[in-house]
Amino acid sequence: MKTADVLFLPHNVKATVKQGESLIRAAMDAGVHINASCGGDGVCGKCRVIIEEGKIDGGLTEKLSKEEIEKGYRQACLASVQGDIVVRIPIESEVDASWLNAQKSPRRTAKIWEMNLGDLKEKGLFLPPIEKRYLELPKPSSQDNLPDVTRLVSFLKARYDEHRLVVQLPVIRKIPDVIRKDDFRITATLLRPVHSGRKTHIINIEPGDTTDRNYAIAVDIGTTTVYSQLLDLITGKVLASFGEYNGQISYGEDVISRIMLAGEPGGLEKLHQVVVSTINTLIKKMVKRARIDKGEISTITMAGNTTMTQLMLKVNPTYIRLSPYVPASTLFAPMRAVDLGLALGDHVTALVYPAISSYVGGDIVAGVMGSGMYRTHEVTLFMDIGTNAEIVIGNKDWLACAACSAGPAFEGGGLKFGMRAAKGAIEDFSMDPVTFEPMNITVGDVRPKGICGSGLITIVATMFEMGVIDNQGKFNRDLDTPRIRSNNEIIEYVLAWKEETQIERDITISEPDLDNFIRAKGAIFSGCMTLLEEVGLGIPDIEKIYLSGGFGSYVDLEKAMAIGLLPEIDPDKVRFIGNGSLMGAKMSSLTNRIRQDVVEVTKRMTNFELSETSSYMDNYVAALFLPHTNMNLFPKLNARFEARKAKFLAQ
Amino acid sequence: MKTADVLFLPHNVKATVKQGESLIRAAMDAGVHINASCGGDGVCGKCRVIIEEGKIDGGLTEKLSKEEIEKGYRQACLASVQGDIVVRIPIESEVDASWLNAQKSPRRTAKIWEMNLGDLKEKGLFLPPIEKRYLELPKPSSQDNLPDVTRLVSFLKARYDEHRLVVQLPVIRKIPDVIRKDDFRITATLLRPVHSGRKTHIINIEPGDTTDRNYAIAVDIGTTTVYSQLLDLITGKVLASFGEYNGQISYGEDVISRIMLAGEPGGLEKLHQVVVSTINTLIKKMVKRARIDKGEISTITMAGNTTMTQLMLKVNPTYIRLSPYVPASTLFAPMRAVDLGLALGDHVTALVYPAISSYVGGDIVAGVMGSGMYRTHEVTLFMDIGTNAEIVIGNKDWLACAACSAGPAFEGGGLKFGMRAAKGAIEDFSMDPVTFEPMNITVGDVRPKGICGSGLITIVATMFEMGVIDNQGKFNRDLDTPRIRSNNEIIEYVLAWKEETQIERDITISEPDLDNFIRAKGAIFSGCMTLLEEVGLGIPDIEKIYLSGGFGSYVDLEKAMAIGLLPEIDPDKVRFIGNGSLMGAKMSSLTNRIRQDVVEVTKRMTNFELSETSSYMDNYVAALFLPHTNMNLFPKLNARFEARKAKFLAQ
Repeated sequence: MKTADVLFLPHNVKATVKQGESLIRAAMDAGVHINASCGGDGVCGKCRVIIEEGKIDGGLTEKLSKEEIEKGYRQACLASVQGDIVVRIPIESEVDASWLNAQKSPRRTAKIWEMNLGDLKEKGLFLPPIEKRYLELPKPSSQDNLPDVTRLVSFLKARYDEHRLVVQLPVIRKIPDVIRKDDFRITATLLRPVHSGRKTHIINIEPGDTTDRNYAIAVDIGTTTVYSQLLDLITGKVLASFGEYNGQISYGEDVISRIMLAGEPGGLEKLHQVVVSTINTLIKKMVKRARIDKGEISTITMAGNTTMTQLMLKVNPTYIRLSPYVPASTLFAPMRAVDLGLALGDHVTALVYPAISSYVGGDIVAGVMGSGMYRTHEVTLFMDIGTNAEIVIGNKDWLACAACSAGPAFEGGGLKFGMRAAKGAIEDFSMDPVTFEPMNITVGDVRPKGICGSGLITIVATMFEMGVIDNQGKFNRDLDTPRIRSNNEIIEYVLAWKEETQIERDITISEPDLDNFIRAKGAIFSGCMTLLEEVGLGIPDIEKIYLSGGFGSYVDLEKAMAIGLLPEIDPDKVRFIGNGSLMGAKMSSLTNRIRQDVVEVTKRMTNFELSETSSYMDNYVAALFLPHTNMNLFPKLNARFEARKAKFLAQ
Repeated sequence: MKTADVLFLPHNVKATVKQGESLIRAAMDAGVHINASCGGDGVCGKCRVIIEEGKIDGGLTEKLSKEEIEKGYRQACLASVQGDIVVRIPIESEVDASWLNAQKSPRRTAKIWEMNLGDLKEKGLFLPPIEKRYLELPKPSSQDNLPDVTRLVSFLKARYDEHRLVVQLPVIRKIPDVIRKDDFRITATLLRPVHSGRKTHIINIEPGDTTDRNYAIAVDIGTTTVYSQLLDLITGKVLASFGEYNGQISYGEDVISRIMLAGEPGGLEKLHQVVVSTINTLIKKMVKRARIDKGEISTITMAGNTTMTQLMLKVNPTYIRLSPYVPASTLFAPMRAVDLGLALGDHVTALVYPAISSYVGGDIVAGVMGSGMYRTHEVTLFMDIGTNAEIVIGNKDWLACAACSAGPAFEGGGLKFGMRAAKGAIEDFSMDPVTFEPMNITVGDVRPKGICGSGLITIVATMFEMGVIDNQGKFNRDLDTPRIRSNNEIIEYVLAWKEETQIERDITISEPDLDNFIRAKGAIFSGCMTLLEEVGLGIPDIEKIYLSGGFGSYVDLEKAMAIGLLPEIDPDKVRFIGNGSLMGAKMSSLTNRIRQDVVEVTKRMTNFELSETSSYMDNYVAALFLPHTNMNLFPKLNARFEARKAKFLAQ
């Protein structure tokens, strides 16, 4: 990937971006503010910059006069970086550049962490759950007319020292023809016992030598999206991966509406079929993409929240929704994929990740397994912030977990102009500290339609640090900007004017929006605090944070800490594991060590029903501030505030 | 049951028969000969007897004159015994009554032996494979919101000390509704591990207390007939039993023709479906007869010969028929009944009896298990003479088995007028030693249609002992009787004249018939001899004989020994176990001890391919005589011959 250096003046900060990156995103990376309401669609015309050195593409619009263009003016949102350049931001108001820099800091997203087969092997954790064995068998004769199965089994024993072998009906049905197809040359697929000493199952047989082809599927069944990977069990590589909207989405956006539907006649069957069909579509796509024979897939591992798991298994989820929130089961013995309606061979075993409770599901357990937090001595905080939020704290000795009723705030829920991180969502934001003009960056660099989770966090954190909102999420009514206004007695800030949007309405963030947001982040933070207290620890004891889910990929760690969503710790200790649920499913496909450990881990994991935990309500109320009533929990933020106050007083 | 004594004169022998028994059958029981060609249909009019005392019903025909009737003459075949009577047989030729008695002996069929639950319990062999447990569970609360499955499992542990429990998908699918249906009162059905230390599966759950209802099904899949029993697992009682023709019979009478069909497109699927459908019909009938809920059936055990087993499992049997006669598998892991197409609950486990080889199948193993011969120190000979013949010799320390290519001689095969033991089959026989006139007794007491296996053995044995045929099965051409004749140069004996039959042809037994018969019995006897020799034993070492199959129920032991079909041992040591295959299937349903033992037994059982065993051909040739070339093997028969010869010389 070719990169280019962009030097921003007068701030004198540099960003290294990939060639072709839009200039406005380069500015955001550098922590430089450029007014831009319209999300990079060239409509508002506010993002004028002067190219002092180097070359860019685009950035020319009718909003710029001929003279201006000759002087080097361009619209940043339409310009793309083609080489090293020097860009000057015309500061429209008198601002101390050092102040500008002081209150900005470059993006600090979490480092990405993923386990792979190499790591597993290195750590001695690689115990392949499925292996193939090739045999050239002697042909039967009148002196040796062993049954076909006995011939296979005894030569597996003699040749590979395989013991305690079990053969199921599908293999018996195949063997007379398969064993003779390539003249008694045959490959057997062996499913290893999870626990040593148990039996090995011969799950498949193929004519000839097919030992180089052995595949598995990992699936994360999300409420909104189902993600899948096709894995090569020999190399551990991902051969294909796809995501699809969960087909159930047309029957209700959230878990609750699906549970309601499942209670109606035929509803459970329908929801079951629909999600299985989604998985089958993914399998088909992956098989096509990777150009493999579907019959060579030996195992599938799935993880999902408790409701998604029960729906996929066709288990009535009614009692998950009703107090006292009882799931049918949290542990699932290996089953046959065909019994679930999966379009795979009848020899394929399906593993379904165990859950902890109605609201801490198999997706979280998979994340815990995939992250490896259960194997380390470090006290680790695992957070999955998605449609809802689940947290796990612990290490190799103990694990505590809880589900926080945060709601889908971080997926755009509970917000007037909230939306998913789709095209047109404001995903990043900056604000001029003097004029309070916004810089909106949208998904797809088009005119805004709404605000997604990452945008929201950045907006709230920026406004809070700039004093535009106070620690209760109320706007500072004294600020001199038309963007803060009262609309039917609701105070709001206009992120984009009607004509700059795609929706022909002003896009705003209001005090009720902020209130919802604070309650959501308060629920998560107080969940962490409650768990920590229950195990006798505090924030300083957290040695590592794993962030799972889409949220973790974009969140600006310092901002998330500044508003009291994440506990304030050294950002270097925060790791982003991506789709933890999928990662856990993948790990279980690759090694029996994870399959062994998972049942133990679920037993070790103590679930706290926060609503039943006495300290939770106090913690919650204390967290209903930005960042928190107890500023001692946020020493670095506090220090920044103190420094700023000192500077302000010194001016 | 009311009985009556019948005294036959001049023989002066008495028979005790049930009231209503036909007089001719009473005579047969007493060992008294009455001429009777027509099988008891009153047609031939030869069975005239004089009732000297007491009362009978019937016996009056146009063939008797008024005077004769007044003198007490009746036709024995149409008369039934109503009370104690004295009957005189008019001896039409001058015969010494003592000679008559000397050459007859009462029927000696094998004693019936069957194992039952009481025996199992007494011997400490009762390890129930399926048990039900009733629980009254505490209801969930916010302080106790365990998953439904965990609640069930943990209270099974607390209340009944049940450990290592596994729950499969069908139970998880049921539990949310079932557990709440009777307010958390629930009965769990537990499938015990066959080997201790393994896991117990919770296979079913029902609302309320259903511990008094727990059923199993045992099935014998015969080539011709499928027999089944519905068992009460609590009492061990047979609640219903039915037999049906194997639906495959319309696709071919014997194993070979079915194997051929299975090799044609769609043939295997068809034969599979048809036999499963037969089993389903039987299940339906039994459930209806016993008035139970089909859902309360927990397990099904099936046994059949190797081909029937493979067809039922839908496993290509082609290589069973082709040299070197290789079955697909002889061992079958427990499977789900629904996977076989059986109309039973999806929690029902199907057990299929393991086989030894292509021609010693699960039916024989089941017989060995059911008879218990594998547990005793006595050297036991197990014989199953049906469509073919299989033999097992051994005890608790060793077992040897072989299949004899005897063909279906004992089911009426290989015989011009052979037939199954259906209505009109000559099933019993006696002969006047002077006139050589026959006494035919038929199934259903109707005019004869043909000869079934029991009739054949008795006919051959009687003719041989009376010198009508010699030890090579050739007729004595010097005898003065129209019944022995040459028909197109084939010598034959007319059992019934055309007008006395239902088929409007003379029913005969010919030298080729006798030749086939001798080869069949020779194959069986030489199989026994070869097995005995291979293990270094002889006939005197046999301490017990178990006869399995319909054959065992009717065969006159002394006659079967006299013709060299069975080794000559004390008839008191011979036991008839009925349908050994069904008995084994039943035993496996009742106790895990049999399930444990069966795999060990199959491992311990040495199969001899007789055609590959060098001594077999010599033994076979030696056995192609009545009873055998080596008369020393038949000391008692020899003694009878010697005594008769002495008597003859003394006259």
